[in-house]
Amino acid sequence: MGSTAAPSIRQAIAGDTVTDWLASVKDPAERSHQLARLATEDLRALGPLLDHDGASDLFEAVDDELAARVLAAMAAGDAAALVEVLDLDHAADILREIKAGPRERLLSALPQDRAEALRGLLSWPEDSVAAHMVPEALTVRPDMTIGDAVQALRSDAATLRSDSRSGAYVYVTDADRRLLGVLAFRDLVLADPQEAVAALTDTDVLSVSPLTDAEDAAQALMDYNLVAVPVVDADNRLLGILTENTAGEITEEEATEDAERQGGSEPLEVPYLRASPWLLWRKRVGWLLLLFVAEAYTGTVLRHFEEEMEAVVALAFFIPLLIGTGGNTGTQITTTLVRAMATGQVRLRDVPAVLAKEMSTGMMIALTMALAALIRAWMLGVGPEITLTVTLTVAAIVLWSSFVASILPPVLKKCRIDPAVVSAPLIATVVDGTGLIIYFMIAHATLSQLQGL
Amino acid sequence: MGSTAAPSIRQAIAGDTVTDWLASVKDPAERSHQLARLATEDLRALGPLLDHDGASDLFEAVDDELAARVLAAMAAGDAAALVEVLDLDHAADILREIKAGPRERLLSALPQDRAEALRGLLSWPEDSVAAHMVPEALTVRPDMTIGDAVQALRSDAATLRSDSRSGAYVYVTDADRRLLGVLAFRDLVLADPQEAVAALTDTDVLSVSPLTDAEDAAQALMDYNLVAVPVVDADNRLLGILTENTAGEITEEEATEDAERQGGSEPLEVPYLRASPWLLWRKRVGWLLLLFVAEAYTGTVLRHFEEEMEAVVALAFFIPLLIGTGGNTGTQITTTLVRAMATGQVRLRDVPAVLAKEMSTGMMIALTMALAALIRAWMLGVGPEITLTVTLTVAAIVLWSSFVASILPPVLKKCRIDPAVVSAPLIATVVDGTGLIIYFMIAHATLSQLQGL
Repeated sequence: MGSTAAPSIRQAIAGDTVTDWLASVKDPAERSHQLARLATEDLRALGPLLDHDGASDLFEAVDDELAARVLAAMAAGDAAALVEVLDLDHAADILREIKAGPRERLLSALPQDRAEALRGLLSWPEDSVAAHMVPEALTVRPDMTIGDAVQALRSDAATLRSDSRSGAYVYVTDADRRLLGVLAFRDLVLADPQEAVAALTDTDVLSVSPLTDAEDAAQALMDYNLVAVPVVDADNRLLGILTENTAGEITEEEATEDAERQGGSEPLEVPYLRASPWLLWRKRVGWLLLLFVAEAYTGTVLRHFEEEMEAVVALAFFIPLLIGTGGNTGTQITTTLVRAMATGQVRLRDVPAVLAKEMSTGMMIALTMALAALIRAWMLGVGPEITLTVTLTVAAIVLWSSFVASILPPVLKKCRIDPAVVSAPLIATVVDGTGLIIYFMIAHATLSQLQGL
Repeated sequence: MGSTAAPSIRQAIAGDTVTDWLASVKDPAERSHQLARLATEDLRALGPLLDHDGASDLFEAVDDELAARVLAAMAAGDAAALVEVLDLDHAADILREIKAGPRERLLSALPQDRAEALRGLLSWPEDSVAAHMVPEALTVRPDMTIGDAVQALRSDAATLRSDSRSGAYVYVTDADRRLLGVLAFRDLVLADPQEAVAALTDTDVLSVSPLTDAEDAAQALMDYNLVAVPVVDADNRLLGILTENTAGEITEEEATEDAERQGGSEPLEVPYLRASPWLLWRKRVGWLLLLFVAEAYTGTVLRHFEEEMEAVVALAFFIPLLIGTGGNTGTQITTTLVRAMATGQVRLRDVPAVLAKEMSTGMMIALTMALAALIRAWMLGVGPEITLTVTLTVAAIVLWSSFVASILPPVLKKCRIDPAVVSAPLIATVVDGTGLIIYFMIAHATLSQLQGL
């Protein structure tokens, strides 16, 4: 497959033409594809061949897990030289994926100030915003003129990383690094150099504390349409900034994890193509077994109604159709609702509105599907009584499923469980057993053959 | 619900204290919640009360559909004054949600150059990157010094919108607006004013053509870790830029649409809380009916095996459990795979690797689930023959479902159908009917009572 074969990085390493390879192979997926297939010797050989630009170019376009694997395979000195090139937040994300031993060797090979900054980032809990911030930001004092500020920034910049990310904004702080406001870099260029920094400072800044959940901070950045969110300590001292880019990565990763949960498995945490069958098995089998045990309940229900099925075997024909329709109705609701909750559109206070909306919709869907069931039962020619049973059951199951599906995600949220675990398989399983009970209860009420049972 | 009631915008409109309301109600969700509930008269009254800052503040934090509703309710002159404040790409996104008549009235009330720029954006297909770009970017010539460039930008900036987004980068173009490279705004501040622009220009720029799919361009921006992507015409002339912020919105919206498709319904296209039951019904009922028709096939299969079920009614006990397990296994695979394809991690060339990985995993899962089925059948006490049937069937259905689920998304992709339509309900439906056939075939081979049938 693939139209023309891309140049091979293995040959580029052998021939010391890695720079040419980087220039001709731009596609991040192709780069990752080739890098992931390199043997440890090749990766070790790659280390000394990458210069400053090459390293930042290469690591910008591969995921953290792969970058960690590449660095861990290299000599500590080579790896440290590459890490030096990266933005601190990016470097910390990569280092977090490396085992403690090799990570410590790599950190020890770094200049002391850099190693300390990275250790600082690595010490925050992984799901906190502080773990993902850029721990350095350009700052100026409010009493400077724009011209002074530019001069001050020029000398600061020499000691800071060349990071286009943290560069969109300059923060205005007092002598104790307490955050006073924010200034757009472009204002520094475009404003009159004589003007005071304070006059151009936007003091209405949304900031977050370091232990804020990273996803919440990222979602706030998106919701408020910001370019960066400063992270401040309890004394309002600036610790770093969460950039738009990092926020985008956090929300994308969260969307992937939610999608995996919604499919009824644990999040993989590594890119799919690099997940081994053994890892996939571990991430999936827990939910499968749990659902199996829950679903096994349907067998108990059916055995309870064994006599009914022996009396009217046609009842069995409709079992998959009825419980399937219930599961489908519920899945439609939970996926929409879970996503709306994940993006902050729906909160707990909206539950009454959600229920009202879903029960109205459920009523319309119940009518539609009952009509479809009527037609289907008539086509199978199972007689008027079973037709009535099936039609009523579809309507009842659709309403029941709508109710369960609208109430389950907010209830879990209330219990501080991620509502994304209400997966399609879970809602289907819940509706399967209960749907069968509804079915046989309606059959009892409707079918004359079952009156004596 | 809700702890303390937020100040009401209705009262703020009545008392002309909208600025205070904006200062005290910062939460975008609360703002949207209140705005969405305003009557048309209130919205009309709101128009003249919003000043420049208030309008941009308010519209930054509500979704396009609601912003469109707010603008459409106002007098054209008031609405035009508010639109003038917004970035062009944001304004175009909002205008796209307004019906042609009111939209034209609003555009006519705008200054001519602004109306023309918006008409230009609105003329691109909605899914193209050009429809979402900022159609203006700061540009400098390569032969200027940094000092000259700053001077030139200062005079340009007066005629441009104050947009922090388009401000992260300055593009270097020739006299015909052909793109030569890019310059970070921060370099303008930090570099020596005597240096030549050309020396600081990064000429290795990823650009896209205007008709590029907006999602692809947004994904490229994320994959390549860029702050903005310039959009150029066939002659490499700069038309505008796609900003990181817009790219984040596009990928988030796409993730929502995919989640909705994966739940077996059509994407809502409006925020969930503002979708009417009638809209929800329309987005859901099509798939439900289609799945119902497909699932109805299970009735045909079961009727075909009516004699077998009459002979061994215990076979029916396991129907929901067996097909449920098949559906769950398939759903786990399709959701992971569809998401990996949506984020560009898995491409068509990876299909053999995916199949190999999933069939290996499927084998391990088949063994695990067969063991669980063995225990369950033994607990139900259905005898050794049925136990054997059920155990073998679980293993066979898991493998079959793994195969179907791994192959279906790439096949659809190949047919240029969005693989996200392979929803949990769809894969469950496919596996239900075929799984029953597998079940009864195995039963025939294993059960002595069925040998004569």
